[in-house]
Amino acid sequence: MPDGIYKVVELVGSSEESVSKAIDRAIAKAAVTLRHLGWFEVTNVRGHIENGKVAHYQVTIKAGFRLEDD
Amino acid sequence: MPDGIYKVVELVGSSEESVSKAIDRAIAKAAVTLRHLGWFEVTNVRGHIENGKVAHYQVTIKAGFRLEDD
Amino acid sequence: MPDGIYKVVELVGSSEESVSKAIDRAIAKAAVTLRHLGWFEVTNVRGHIENGKVAHYQVTIKAGFRLEDD
Amino acid sequence: MPDGIYKVVELVGSSEESVSKAIDRAIAKAAVTLRHLGWFEVTNVRGHIENGKVAHYQVTIKAGFRLEDD
Amino acid sequence: MPDGIYKVVELVGSSEESVSKAIDRAIAKAAVTLRHLGWFEVTNVRGHIENGKVAHYQVTIKAGFRLEDD
Amino acid sequence: MPDGIYKVVELVGSSEESVSKAIDRAIAKAAVTLRHLGWFEVTNVRGHIENGKVAHYQVTIKAGFRLEDD
Amino acid sequence: MPDGIYKVVELVGSSEESVSKAIDRAIAKAAVTLRHLGWFEVTNVRGHIENGKVAHYQVTIKAGFRLEDD
Amino acid sequence: MPDGIYKVVELVGSSEESVSKAIDRAIAKAAVTLRHLGWFEVTNVRGHIENGKVAHYQVTIKAGFRLEDD
Amino acid sequence: MPDGIYKVVELVGSSEESVSKAIDRAIAKAAVTLRHLGWFEVTNVRGHIENGKVAHYQVTIKAGFRLEDD
Amino acid sequence: MPDGIYKVVELVGSSEESVSKAIDRAIAKAAVTLRHLGWFEVTNVRGHIENGKVAHYQVTIKAGFRLEDD
Amino acid sequence: MPDGIYKVVELVGSSEESVSKAIDRAIAKAAVTLRHLGWFEVTNVRGHIENGKVAHYQVTIKAGFRLEDD
Amino acid sequence: MPDGIYKVVELVGSSEESVSKAIDRAIAKAAVTLRHLGWFEVTNVRGHIENGKVAHYQVTIKAGFRLEDD
Repeated sequence: MPDGIYKVVELVGSSEESVSKAIDRAIAKAAVTLRHLGWFEVTNVRGHIENGKVAHYQVTIKAGFRLEDD
Repeated sequence: MPDGIYKVVELVGSSEESVSKAIDRAIAKAAVTLRHLGWFEVTNVRGHIENGKVAHYQVTIKAGFRLEDD
Repeated sequence: MPDGIYKVVELVGSSEESVSKAIDRAIAKAAVTLRHLGWFEVTNVRGHIENGKVAHYQVTIKAGFRLEDD
Repeated sequence: MPDGIYKVVELVGSSEESVSKAIDRAIAKAAVTLRHLGWFEVTNVRGHIENGKVAHYQVTIKAGFRLEDD
Repeated sequence: MPDGIYKVVELVGSSEESVSKAIDRAIAKAAVTLRHLGWFEVTNVRGHIENGKVAHYQVTIKAGFRLEDD
Repeated sequence: MPDGIYKVVELVGSSEESVSKAIDRAIAKAAVTLRHLGWFEVTNVRGHIENGKVAHYQVTIKAGFRLEDD
Repeated sequence: MPDGIYKVVELVGSSEESVSKAIDRAIAKAAVTLRHLGWFEVTNVRGHIENGKVAHYQVTIKAGFRLEDD
Repeated sequence: MPDGIYKVVELVGSSEESVSKAIDRAIAKAAVTLRHLGWFEVTNVRGHIENGKVAHYQVTIKAGFRLEDD
Repeated sequence: MPDGIYKVVELVGSSEESVSKAIDRAIAKAAVTLRHLGWFEVTNVRGHIENGKVAHYQVTIKAGFRLEDD
Repeated sequence: MPDGIYKVVELVGSSEESVSKAIDRAIAKAAVTLRHLGWFEVTNVRGHIENGKVAHYQVTIKAGFRLEDD
Repeated sequence: MPDGIYKVVELVGSSEESVSKAIDRAIAKAAVTLRHLGWFEVTNVRGHIENGKVAHYQVTIKAGFRLEDD
Repeated sequence: MPDGIYKVVELVGSSEESVSKAIDRAIAKAAVTLRHLGWFEVTNVRGHIENGKVAHYQVTIKAGFRLEDD
């Protein structure tokens, strides 16, 4: 996080495969509308179980993006 | 929370009547501009006191809404 | 909590009406199989939203019951 | 909380009826001796169970009151 | 978590391979005796080190299962 | 905690003498029905006061036991 | 904690001997001026070291006392 | 926080001078696009070090603004 | 904190200038009625915003004072 | 953690590939200078984003090593 | 903690007898190599169970020592 | 925090003047023996009171430094 002003958004990504795929999907989705995404932090890992197996992982992240200078 | 990507927003609702009314008001207000609101979580309950009585309750919630597919 | 040994269980109750109804339902259900329930503590309040309104509240509680003397 | 110096006290109120009644009772009791109570925050919700039902709710709050100018 | 009453159990799974394998093993074991497992949440990730390498990961989860209607 | 799958239970033990006696009593009680208890962690220490003295200590612990292989 | 309204105070007791002695001393001191002390909870255990040994333990507790009916 | 519905945003401000300057810069930046900013809360203070000195402070705040009536 | 019994009070100080001025004002006010104030700890830093600028800082502290020997 | 005295160090490992690779790298680095590393615990997972993708994961761990008998 | 710069280390001590003995052993061990140890704080109390009894207590502490002036 | 392996140390700095001076002094002291200090995070702000005024501030920080490649 170099010098600058950041806004932080909270996102939940999900994936049937893994925790990191869930992170990747949340960030990819956010990057469609938010430029200058710079860092993320994982705040929660959970998921759904179906028939005694993990159906999908859900990962909550906070992601920061630099606000552009006016 | 079925499969998908969610964004989480933080809101404070208030009500002179009860904690649950304060939650309802925050969600109703958010629903005007946010479609696909799916869940909420209470993170703080507080309020103001006037003349030795609760003047209004203030409830902070996080609410998640599914980001639409592009 | 008078003198004795307690076991603590974690439960999630839900209700379409209110937070306290969700607590009541979780405790009533637990009381079917657990005797000597003595106290509870709320650890989380959340819920689902449908059409911009609270569809039901979900309250997580920890409840303690005294283990009977052998 | 407008400008000023506040002292914060911690109180536990109880009620057989509801969480909000327990809050109201704690604040009413505190208001007998403390002037200028301005706000409260809920820090814990728990209660006692008798015969498989909530016997009474106990709510811990922090309440702030403005110290009078000398 | 649709409407219903859930019980939450805490489990520690371990795996020599990865964090997610440790989660999978804990859930598979729990599913032998618990029907209706619906969700899980990771509360701790730790592990043992031998000869300067991770010997196995240990992941603590809370898992919720719906209590059947009587 | 060597390799294996553990279940974690939460217990409250009490003693008129000391915090460690309260821990010992909770574990002794749990050991009557749970085999393979392997570790514990203290999560809360509290107690009751009568006539200005500690009447008994109450210690909440989490205790883990290895699930047997099928 | 039977029905009633409680006030909670925070105290730090110290003892050269043990943690429990530090608790006892804080409660004995508080009981001089506060009637109806009913329960306590330990929130912090720390201490001072002199010459590589514990010089005294300092234990922070919260203690609740019932407010008398007017 | 008078009566009303608030939205809370999370921001990171930075300054080479002081923590409070970092707060001021984050709020000034937010105020360009958000009307009715009413309060803030500091949730994290960190910073970067260069050549053994603080290069700049980074302060994370949550800031609430009242949603306008429709 | 040398040997002795301490009581801890919670205070909120405010200042238009800075966080440390808010701390100073809370302690100066407390010192009018409390002798033997020995230490403080900051538990919360927040503030009010007016016209896009910090109107005043509000700092919550816990302050401990030694109870006099009887 | 068998009987003995441990020291705990805090480390941040990073990897472009995965969270577990970041853990592995931190432990491998620590093992160069610290003998008897016995366990670790993950305390934070974060990372950097470049061009809308995770550039690298950063995992903070605490790792314990047994102090050798003199 | 008088004026000065301190470094804080984290240690885990164990004892078959009691929590305080575990603290004492960790501090005695640290004092062999660290001069000027001034204070400690308990951050975790856990232990191992064998045959339904506490085999040994493990206490995690943070201990601070003053860095000597150059 | 660019790519690399970091170690994190915990320090307490003090100053009679201000919180930021206390941070500066802790970092300056650490920089005498630790190269590559890259970032810090404030984890606690407290201080001592004498004659009803702040005698000095004590700030606990965690500071990370990059481990050099071998």
